[in-house]
Amino acid sequence: VEGTNGTTDDTDVIKSFGGFQVTKVLNEDSQRKSIFLLGRFGDSKKDAVVMLEKTPFSEDVAKDMLTKTSILKNVMHNDIYGTYQLFPKQELNALKTTLIYPATEKHIAKYSCTQAFLITETADDYTDITLPYLESERFSLDWVYNILDKKSEVERIIYEDPDAEQGFMVMPDMKWNEKLTEDLYVMGLVRKRGIRTLRDLTAVHLPMLKNMLVKGKAAIWERYQVPGNKLRIYVHYMPSYYHFHVHFTHINYNAPGSGTERAHMLTDVINNLEIDSSYYRRSTLSFVVRENDKLCARFQEAGQI
Amino acid sequence: VEGTNGTTDDTDVIKSFGGFQVTKVLNEDSQRKSIFLLGRFGDSKKDAVVMLEKTPFSEDVAKDMLTKTSILKNVMHNDIYGTYQLFPKQELNALKTTLIYPATEKHIAKYSCTQAFLITETADDYTDITLPYLESERFSLDWVYNILDKKSEVERIIYEDPDAEQGFMVMPDMKWNEKLTEDLYVMGLVRKRGIRTLRDLTAVHLPMLKNMLVKGKAAIWERYQVPGNKLRIYVHYMPSYYHFHVHFTHINYNAPGSGTERAHMLTDVINNLEIDSSYYRRSTLSFVVRENDKLCARFQEAGQI
Repeated sequence: VEGTNGTTDDTDVIKSFGGFQVTKVLNEDSQRKSIFLLGRFGDSKKDAVVMLEKTPFSEDVAKDMLTKTSILKNVMHNDIYGTYQLFPKQELNALKTTLIYPATEKHIAKYSCTQAFLITETADDYTDITLPYLESERFSLDWVYNILDKKSEVERIIYEDPDAEQGFMVMPDMKWNEKLTEDLYVMGLVRKRGIRTLRDLTAVHLPMLKNMLVKGKAAIWERYQVPGNKLRIYVHYMPSYYHFHVHFTHINYNAPGSGTERAHMLTDVINNLEIDSSYYRRSTLSFVVRENDKLCARFQEAGQI
Repeated sequence: VEGTNGTTDDTDVIKSFGGFQVTKVLNEDSQRKSIFLLGRFGDSKKDAVVMLEKTPFSEDVAKDMLTKTSILKNVMHNDIYGTYQLFPKQELNALKTTLIYPATEKHIAKYSCTQAFLITETADDYTDITLPYLESERFSLDWVYNILDKKSEVERIIYEDPDAEQGFMVMPDMKWNEKLTEDLYVMGLVRKRGIRTLRDLTAVHLPMLKNMLVKGKAAIWERYQVPGNKLRIYVHYMPSYYHFHVHFTHINYNAPGSGTERAHMLTDVINNLEIDSSYYRRSTLSFVVRENDKLCARFQEAGQI
């Protein structure tokens, strides 16, 4: 029996959003044109999370929009330049919609906007706040060691330099489906253990860094025919895991995490270590923390946020 | 008299896109959901450039979309997770539309997808290739001097430090409408003339750089109540004009030009000059050139691309 909200059962396919009540905007992204909403169906006591995202244009749909069937309203006009609002007919306006229902507290937290803060970490802040945090948390790197020891993801390796000091492995990042090179995202994973972050690098590591730069570019050219001058090659600070790795992304792709507040060009890292072997020990470095990060709590306790 | 394309004159406001023929897709951005098209109205021999961009969600519009008036099609369903296509009614689907008509060759080139290359510029490359280019092209900075001399955009200034050496002006960037602080984009324009790029900076400029960092953050807090630890503060290399200026953007906003291949955190610039006054004279720096840039041609002639 179909209920008033158009569903027959909690976890069934819904027929419409008739009677849906939005209770909260969890998050939104004005650049990607997406919004995350919390709400309930009619009188239900159960929460639903709805994600709406506008879809990219295809050539065909764009052509069908530039016809008489669209409503056009002028906004501004000056000589040869005009801006308008265009309202295409209903069937051309697909939104990608994801529904999680019933949604748990964890789902709601996951899709909620969390506060972010830019930390300006001096060398002393690193010693007093960040390093004790890294040492107190025992982050498991087993999954990384499994890759390096060829216990997992062996079929994903596209290049390998087995040298114990300078060697590394190259593989496509999980975020990349390898279909188009325009959004190429490849990872380089160093063999050597114990380099947690940029802060641990000195001039001793220059041969390894240069090796990754040169051979990483060559491996990507070999496999995907993308030349080195189309690649943004960088290291994160802070990284998402504490085993040294390098990101290779296509310069036409605005990859997540490629912003200047987090990404450090590998050529800059090499340049800086050549200028001063202790560059990353003595420098002030910036990074963004989110309020649900434990490191954020440490900086808050230290009165730095 | 209204023509067949719905316009009375070439440069008039158009009433509809009836009869418009798309001849080419110039560019598209699947992340921002925008597309740039070349086309003609009916039998016109004149080109038009049309830019379509999907609009961000507002809470009100999203609520109106999650009602019975939208058509809903199920795509995938698994337990509590479901994906759908949602087609809201016509009047909820505003597209931001910009028309340039008649469009010149320059307009078409400007909005076309061009090849981009990452240049790794050594200090010698700068001296041998980039600097001669900067000196041979006489880039007009009159519009900047008009602002600094208060001949234009006076009403847009939100803060001013009049000191001749360390002073600067702060104003919202043209790309920001000042409606939401989530996509805050503010510019700091130094008073002192003659600093073309990062390459011209030495330790002599440290007081000016620190002044812009501290007072720029204070001015933004004062005017927009956005604290300094929510700001990404950076300098472009290469800049789009050769008078020293600083970008202030909200860390939640993935601002165009904030990628690591172009943006240099102001705190890093200060840090580097404190380590070595000649840091920007001797370092290897990366930047992206597009094939229609004259500087790209210079690097190609030098065999660097």
